[in-house]
Amino acid sequence: MAKKNQGGITVKKDENFSEWFTQIIQKCELADLRYNIKGFLVFQPWSVLSMEKMYRYLEDVLQRKSHKPYWFPTVIPESNFKQEASHVKGFTPEVFWITHGGKKKFEERLALRPTSETAFYQMFNLWIRSYKDLPFKTYQRASVFRYETKATRPFLRSREFYWIEAHCAHATEKDAFTQVKEDMETTQEVLHDIYGVPFMFFERPAWDRFPGASRTFAADALNPNGKVIQQPSTHMISPNFSKAFDIKFKDKDEKEKYAFITCYGPAISRMFASIIITHGDDKGLKFPWEIAPIQVMIIPISENSQVTKKAKALKDKIQKLASVEIDNSEKRPGEKFNHWEMKGVPIRIDLGLKDIKKNKITIFRRDLNKKEVVPEKNIIKTIEKISKEFTKNLIKEADKIFKKKIKKAKNIDEIKKVIKEGAIAKSNFCSVEKDGEKCAEVIEKETGAEIRGTRLDEKSKASGKCTICGKPAKHIVYIAKAY
Amino acid sequence: MAKKNQGGITVKKDENFSEWFTQIIQKCELADLRYNIKGFLVFQPWSVLSMEKMYRYLEDVLQRKSHKPYWFPTVIPESNFKQEASHVKGFTPEVFWITHGGKKKFEERLALRPTSETAFYQMFNLWIRSYKDLPFKTYQRASVFRYETKATRPFLRSREFYWIEAHCAHATEKDAFTQVKEDMETTQEVLHDIYGVPFMFFERPAWDRFPGASRTFAADALNPNGKVIQQPSTHMISPNFSKAFDIKFKDKDEKEKYAFITCYGPAISRMFASIIITHGDDKGLKFPWEIAPIQVMIIPISENSQVTKKAKALKDKIQKLASVEIDNSEKRPGEKFNHWEMKGVPIRIDLGLKDIKKNKITIFRRDLNKKEVVPEKNIIKTIEKISKEFTKNLIKEADKIFKKKIKKAKNIDEIKKVIKEGAIAKSNFCSVEKDGEKCAEVIEKETGAEIRGTRLDEKSKASGKCTICGKPAKHIVYIAKAY
Repeated sequence: MAKKNQGGITVKKDENFSEWFTQIIQKCELADLRYNIKGFLVFQPWSVLSMEKMYRYLEDVLQRKSHKPYWFPTVIPESNFKQEASHVKGFTPEVFWITHGGKKKFEERLALRPTSETAFYQMFNLWIRSYKDLPFKTYQRASVFRYETKATRPFLRSREFYWIEAHCAHATEKDAFTQVKEDMETTQEVLHDIYGVPFMFFERPAWDRFPGASRTFAADALNPNGKVIQQPSTHMISPNFSKAFDIKFKDKDEKEKYAFITCYGPAISRMFASIIITHGDDKGLKFPWEIAPIQVMIIPISENSQVTKKAKALKDKIQKLASVEIDNSEKRPGEKFNHWEMKGVPIRIDLGLKDIKKNKITIFRRDLNKKEVVPEKNIIKTIEKISKEFTKNLIKEADKIFKKKIKKAKNIDEIKKVIKEGAIAKSNFCSVEKDGEKCAEVIEKETGAEIRGTRLDEKSKASGKCTICGKPAKHIVYIAKAY
Repeated sequence: MAKKNQGGITVKKDENFSEWFTQIIQKCELADLRYNIKGFLVFQPWSVLSMEKMYRYLEDVLQRKSHKPYWFPTVIPESNFKQEASHVKGFTPEVFWITHGGKKKFEERLALRPTSETAFYQMFNLWIRSYKDLPFKTYQRASVFRYETKATRPFLRSREFYWIEAHCAHATEKDAFTQVKEDMETTQEVLHDIYGVPFMFFERPAWDRFPGASRTFAADALNPNGKVIQQPSTHMISPNFSKAFDIKFKDKDEKEKYAFITCYGPAISRMFASIIITHGDDKGLKFPWEIAPIQVMIIPISENSQVTKKAKALKDKIQKLASVEIDNSEKRPGEKFNHWEMKGVPIRIDLGLKDIKKNKITIFRRDLNKKEVVPEKNIIKTIEKISKEFTKNLIKEADKIFKKKIKKAKNIDEIKKVIKEGAIAKSNFCSVEKDGEKCAEVIEKETGAEIRGTRLDEKSKASGKCTICGKPAKHIVYIAKAY
C-alpha cells in the first residue's frame, strides 16, 4: 500500500494538468496568490532564487553578444504612445494610468510601462548619429504591467511580469534580420540548452504581428494538454518606429537614413512556467541543474552527533561546487524526502548512521528518480558527474515528447484529429500574408486552433495545395491551440 | 604646457563639487537626464554594470545571513496605507497614484510603491503562525517611487530609485535590536569593505524617525563639501505595524503575541552616488575593483598586426581573473588614456611595439595613479596582486579624509565654526528624546546643520553639560549639514 503523501501533489499531470499546475505553484511555494490586487502575485523565494539564476544566464549571453544594459524609468508619458499609431492602438486598452503625484493632478497621464519601445526610441533619437554607432544594442531587466482583460494565470499571464527587453538599431534591413536570427540562437542557447525547454521558432503570419511591426517572430513551447505558449518574441519594427521617433543616422555615403529597429522580449516569469510544465512530474518539480534554487539537499536520517557532524562536513565539501543545504527541520525523514522531491532539488543525500559506518553515501537523483549508493570518497566526483549530465537528461526526455507532438495533416479533418489528440498539426498552406487570413479563419472556426506561423529553420519545402482553399501552397505552417 | 583634455572633467572636485558631480554623470555616461518626465532618468551601461555588481555583493551577504528573496507587486492598494496612521501621513504626500486600467476607473486607487511595508506585512499576517517561523527574514530587490517635492539630483534623489528592502519579523524586541546590529554589520561589510565608502552609523533622534517606527538607525556618508548623505537605514517599527497588520505568533508558552518588525533599506543608486563622490578625483571616476564595470582596459598604441595579436592574447589570458576589454576605437591613444582614466577603469594596459619587443608590459593603475612596467611573464601575477590591494588603497585614503572631518565642539560658536569649515561636529547634548528637540532647533537655526544622532558604536561617554541649554548631557551627538 502506498504511503499517504502528506502535503504532496494529489493529481496526475497528464490527467488534470490545470489542477496539477495550481497545486505546484501553491505547494512548492512558488507564488502566493492572496495579494489584494487582482492579477498581481507575490513571488516567493523558491521561484525567485531560480528566476534570478535564469536572469543571470540570459544576461550573460546578451552581454557576450554586445548588448549593453540600461535601466529605463518604469513610467512613460502618454504622448510617447501616440507617436506610433498601431502601437497606441495595440497597447493603450491595457495600460495602467498614473494621474496624480500626492494631491497634484498631472497635466499629462503617465503609463506604467506595458513594454518600453516608446521610452527607448526617444533616447535612440538622441544617442544615434552615425553608422559608426550601429549596431546599437541595448537591453533592460524590468517588470512590465498589462491590465489584462483575459483571465490571468500565475507565471503565464499576470498583470505584472518579469522580463528582459532588448532593443537594437541597425543600418540595414539585412542587419536587422541577422539580429532576428541571433535572437533565435540566444533563445536556443538559453531556453533550450540551459532551461531545458523545447520550442519551435516561428515567423508569425501577417495578421498576428506585434503592433507596429513589419515582421514578428516568436518561440512556442508546449503544454502537455497540447496548447502552445508563446515564449520569447522578436520583432522587426521598422520603418514605423524609426520614422515615428525620427531615428536617423549618417551613413558611409554621407546620406541621412532611418535606422532599422528590432526588439526581443524573453519573459522570465513565463519561461519559468514552461520550465515547471516541461520537466515536472506527478511527484512535483524537477529543476534543471543550472537554475535549481538549491542543487543538493542533505537529509540527516537520525538525530545523532555523528550524523550531524558528517552532514556539516559534507556541506562544507560540496558547497565548493554546488549550492547545498542541510534540512534540520523537525519533520520525519520520510516527509523530508517527499518534500524535497516535490520541490525538485536535483540531488538529495539521505544521511544515516549505517551508511556512515560503511563509508557510503546514499544519494537520490531527481533526473532519473533513482537512488545510488557511492563510496564516500567519490561523493564530489559523483556530484560533478551528475551536474554535467543532469540537464542533458531532462532535455533528452523533453525533446522526445515534443517531437512526438508534431504531426502532418493533409486536410481539415486530419488537422481536427491532430488538434483533438493534443498535438501540433503541420500542413501545407496558401499564404501567411494578408490573403491567407480567410483560410486561417476557417481553421480556427473548425478546430479552435490557430496558425502559429512558418518555421525559420524549416527543413522541408511547401508542395501541393493549401489544405483549405486548394490554391497552390506557398508555405508549411504549424497549427495549434494557444494558451 | 598641459595638453587640452578633450571631453574631460573641467572643474576641480574640491573647488566646485556640484559642477564636478554633474560633469561626472554626463561625461562618464552614467545617466541621461533628458528623459521626458521630471525627476526620472535613464541609467546607462557604465552605471548599470556597476550597480548590478553592487546588488550581487549585497544580496550574497543578505542570503548568507538567511534573508530569503521575494518579488512583491510594484503596486499597493490605497487602503493598505491607511492601516498605519503615521505611515500614511509620512508617505501619501509623495505617492504616485494609479487610477485607471485602460478605460476603466478603479474603485480604489493603487499606489506606485514608495516603500513596501504595507505590502509585506499583510502577507506576514498570513505567513507567520508560530515562534518556529521566527525570525522571518525577507528582502526584495526593487525600484521605488516618490513624488519628491524637494529638488531632485541624479543618483542622490530621484523620483524612481533602486534599492533593496529587507523586512524581518522577530519574537522579541531584543531579537529586533540584534537585527539592527546585524544590519549595521552588513552595511559595514558591503558599503565600507566592498564599495569603500566610510560612514557613521547613528541612532536618529526621536524627532527624526521613520513614519511609524519606534527607533530609527541610519548610516551617514560624507560629501567633500561637508554635507552628509543618509545611506542604509534600519527601523524598529513595532509595535505600530504589527498591530496595524495583526502580525501575531503563538509563542513557546502557547500565548499569542505580536511580532517585532524591523526593516532595512540600502539604496543601490544612492550608494553608487557616494562611491563616485568618495573615490572620484579631478580626472574622473575611480571604481573599487570589485564593482568596476570593466576591470582592465587594453589600449593598442599603434595599429600593427603584432600589437593586435598580443592584445587579443593578453585579453584571453586576463579574462580568467578579471573583466577585460580592448579599446579598438578610432581615437588617438592619448584620448583613450584620458577617456578610461576618467571612466575609472582600475587597470589600463598601454600596449606598444617597443614594449612587446622587450617582453614588457606597461600598466597604469588608477588607485595610485601610477605607471608600472612589468615583465610580460608576470602580468597575471601583477594583476592578481593589484586586484587584492586596489580597494584597500581606496579605503585607506577615504578613511583618512573622513576621520579628519569629525571635530569636537564645546559650545555653539565652536559648532558654527566646525560646520562652516565643512566638517561634522561632535558635541555633548541634553537628550535625543522629545525633550531635546528645542535645543536641536537652536542648533539648526544658528548653524543650518542638524543633529544626525548618537553612534551605536560610540566609544566615549557623555559628560558635562549640554552645549545649548546647559542641562546635564545624556548623549554625545553628531551635527552636520545634510543633503
